[in-house]
Amino acid sequence: MTATLVTLDLVGIFVFAISGALVGVRKDLDVFGVLVLAGTTGLGGGFLRDVLIGATPPAALADWRYLLVPVAAGLVTFAFHGAVGRVERQVVVFDAFGLSVFCVAGALKATDYGLSPIPAALMGMVTGIGGGMVRDVLAGRVPVVFRGELYATPALAGGAIAVLGERADLPVAVVAVAGAAVCLVWRLLALWRGWTAPLPTGPASV
Amino acid sequence: MTATLVTLDLVGIFVFAISGALVGVRKDLDVFGVLVLAGTTGLGGGFLRDVLIGATPPAALADWRYLLVPVAAGLVTFAFHGAVGRVERQVVVFDAFGLSVFCVAGALKATDYGLSPIPAALMGMVTGIGGGMVRDVLAGRVPVVFRGELYATPALAGGAIAVLGERADLPVAVVAVAGAAVCLVWRLLALWRGWTAPLPTGPASV
Amino acid sequence: MTATLVTLDLVGIFVFAISGALVGVRKDLDVFGVLVLAGTTGLGGGFLRDVLIGATPPAALADWRYLLVPVAAGLVTFAFHGAVGRVERQVVVFDAFGLSVFCVAGALKATDYGLSPIPAALMGMVTGIGGGMVRDVLAGRVPVVFRGELYATPALAGGAIAVLGERADLPVAVVAVAGAAVCLVWRLLALWRGWTAPLPTGPASV
Repeated sequence: MTATLVTLDLVGIFVFAISGALVGVRKDLDVFGVLVLAGTTGLGGGFLRDVLIGATPPAALADWRYLLVPVAAGLVTFAFHGAVGRVERQVVVFDAFGLSVFCVAGALKATDYGLSPIPAALMGMVTGIGGGMVRDVLAGRVPVVFRGELYATPALAGGAIAVLGERADLPVAVVAVAGAAVCLVWRLLALWRGWTAPLPTGPASV
Repeated sequence: MTATLVTLDLVGIFVFAISGALVGVRKDLDVFGVLVLAGTTGLGGGFLRDVLIGATPPAALADWRYLLVPVAAGLVTFAFHGAVGRVERQVVVFDAFGLSVFCVAGALKATDYGLSPIPAALMGMVTGIGGGMVRDVLAGRVPVVFRGELYATPALAGGAIAVLGERADLPVAVVAVAGAAVCLVWRLLALWRGWTAPLPTGPASV
Repeated sequence: MTATLVTLDLVGIFVFAISGALVGVRKDLDVFGVLVLAGTTGLGGGFLRDVLIGATPPAALADWRYLLVPVAAGLVTFAFHGAVGRVERQVVVFDAFGLSVFCVAGALKATDYGLSPIPAALMGMVTGIGGGMVRDVLAGRVPVVFRGELYATPALAGGAIAVLGERADLPVAVVAVAGAAVCLVWRLLALWRGWTAPLPTGPASV
C-alpha cells in the first residue's frame, strides 16, 4: 500500500515537473531556470502545505527520490522539448492523475497534523494546485488555475471526500480511492466537455 | 475583550478580502480565482507572520470562521462587483480599520512567540501589508504598497507602539488601543491629505 | 571564528540588499518599497531556508543587526542611487562573496537541522539565490537567475562541497573555506569569461 502511494506520488511529481519545465523552455530560460521551474512545480504544492501545517522539513527534503524525479523530468524536457511539447495534450491526462493523488494525500496528511476537515480539504487543494501557482508566479504570469479551466474545484472535492470519509471511520484506503476517483473523473470530464468556472458578469467598474 | 478582538479581526479580514476580490474581478478571473485572491488577501498577512514566527498551523486553519469570512466576501464581491466597486472609496476607510487591528494583533502575537520589540513590530507590519502583497504578486502586478500611498509606515508605527508599551508593563488593552489609534489616524490623514512616501530623486542610472 | 562568520554574513546581506534597492529605484518605487526590496533581497534566502527546515523564527528576527544592515543599505542606495548605480559592476564582485558565504552557511545550517547532504546543498543554494528570486517576483520580473548568467550552479557546488566534507569528518572550518572558495572562483570566472548556462535548442513548440 505505502509503496503504491509513493509510486503514485512520484508519478504525479514527474508529470507536474514536466509542465513546469515546458513553461520554462517557452520562456526561453536556461537549463537551470528550467530545472527550478520543474522542481517548484512538482514539489511546490507539498512544500506550501508542509510549511503551513508545520510539517518541516518537508518530506521531499528527506527522501532523495523526491528530488531526483523533478530533476530527471526537467532534464528530459529540456533536451527533448519539441517531442514533449507535441504530447502535451496527453500529458494533461496524467496531470489529472497527479492532481487526484496530491489532493487526497495532502488532505489526509493535514488531518494527521491536527487540522479539522474543512482546512484539511483546503490543504489538499493547496497540495494539488500550489506547485502550478508557484510556477506561474516565477514565470511572470497570472496563475492559469485562476482562469477558465476547472482545476481547483475537483481537487477540493477529492480532498473533502477523503477527510470526511476518514472522520466517519471508513477505511482510509477506501476513502482515499473514492476521493481520488471523484477528482479524476470530474477533472477529465471538465477537460473533455470543456467545462469552465463562472466568470464575472457585466463590465467591471474601474 | 477577546470577543471584541475576534470580531475586529474578522471585520478586517472581510474588508481585505473584498479588496482582493475586486482585483480578481478586474483581472477577469473566474469565480475560483476571485475566491483565492479574496482568501489570500484576507488571510495572507497572518499566514506569513505565523509561518515566520513558527506558529503553525496558522490560527485561520484552526477556526472555520476565518475561512468562511473571506469566502463570503469573495462571493458577494463576485456577484455584485458593480455595486461593491462603486463604494470602494468608502471601503478604503474600513481597510484602514483592518490595517490598525492587524498591525497591533500581529505585533503582540510575535512578542508572545519570543520576538523582541523591533522584529515584533515588523511582524505587525507584515500582518497588515502581507495579504495585499500576495494579492498583487498573484495578480501579476508590483505591490501597490510599494508605490505612492502611505500604508506600511502607519502599520509599523502602530505595531511598535503596542509592543514597546507592553514591554513598559502598561496594560495590554491600553497599548493595543493606542497603537491601533495611531495607525488609524495616520492612515486616514494620509488618505485625506494625499500624503505620499518619498520617491527617488533624479534619474535612475541604468 | 564566529565573529568572522557573522561579519561575512552581514557583508553579504549588505551587498544583496544594495542590489535589491537598486531594482526598486529603477522601478520608481517609493522609499518604503525600496527598503522592502532591500530587506527581502538581503534576508529572503535565509528566511526561505529557515522556514523550509523548520528553524523558526529565522535568525534575522532574533538579532537586530540583521535588520539594521539591509535598512542601512536601502537608505544609502535610495539617497545616492546615482553613485551606487555607477559602481554596480564592482558591486557584482562583492555579490559573489556574499553568494559564497551564504551557500556554505546555509548548507551547514541545514545539516544541523537533520537534512542529508543533497537536500542540505540545495538549501545552501536556496540561501544564496532565494533573496534575489523574491526581489524579482516582487518587482514583477522573471528571476534573472533563470536567464543566462551562471549564478546558482556555483552556489550549489559550494554548498555540496561543505556538507560532503563535513560528513567525511573534515574540520568544519576547512570545508567551509573550500566550499566558499570553489563557489567564489567559479562565479568570478563566469563573470570574467562570460560563461552562461545552456539555453534550449531549437524552436519551442507552442
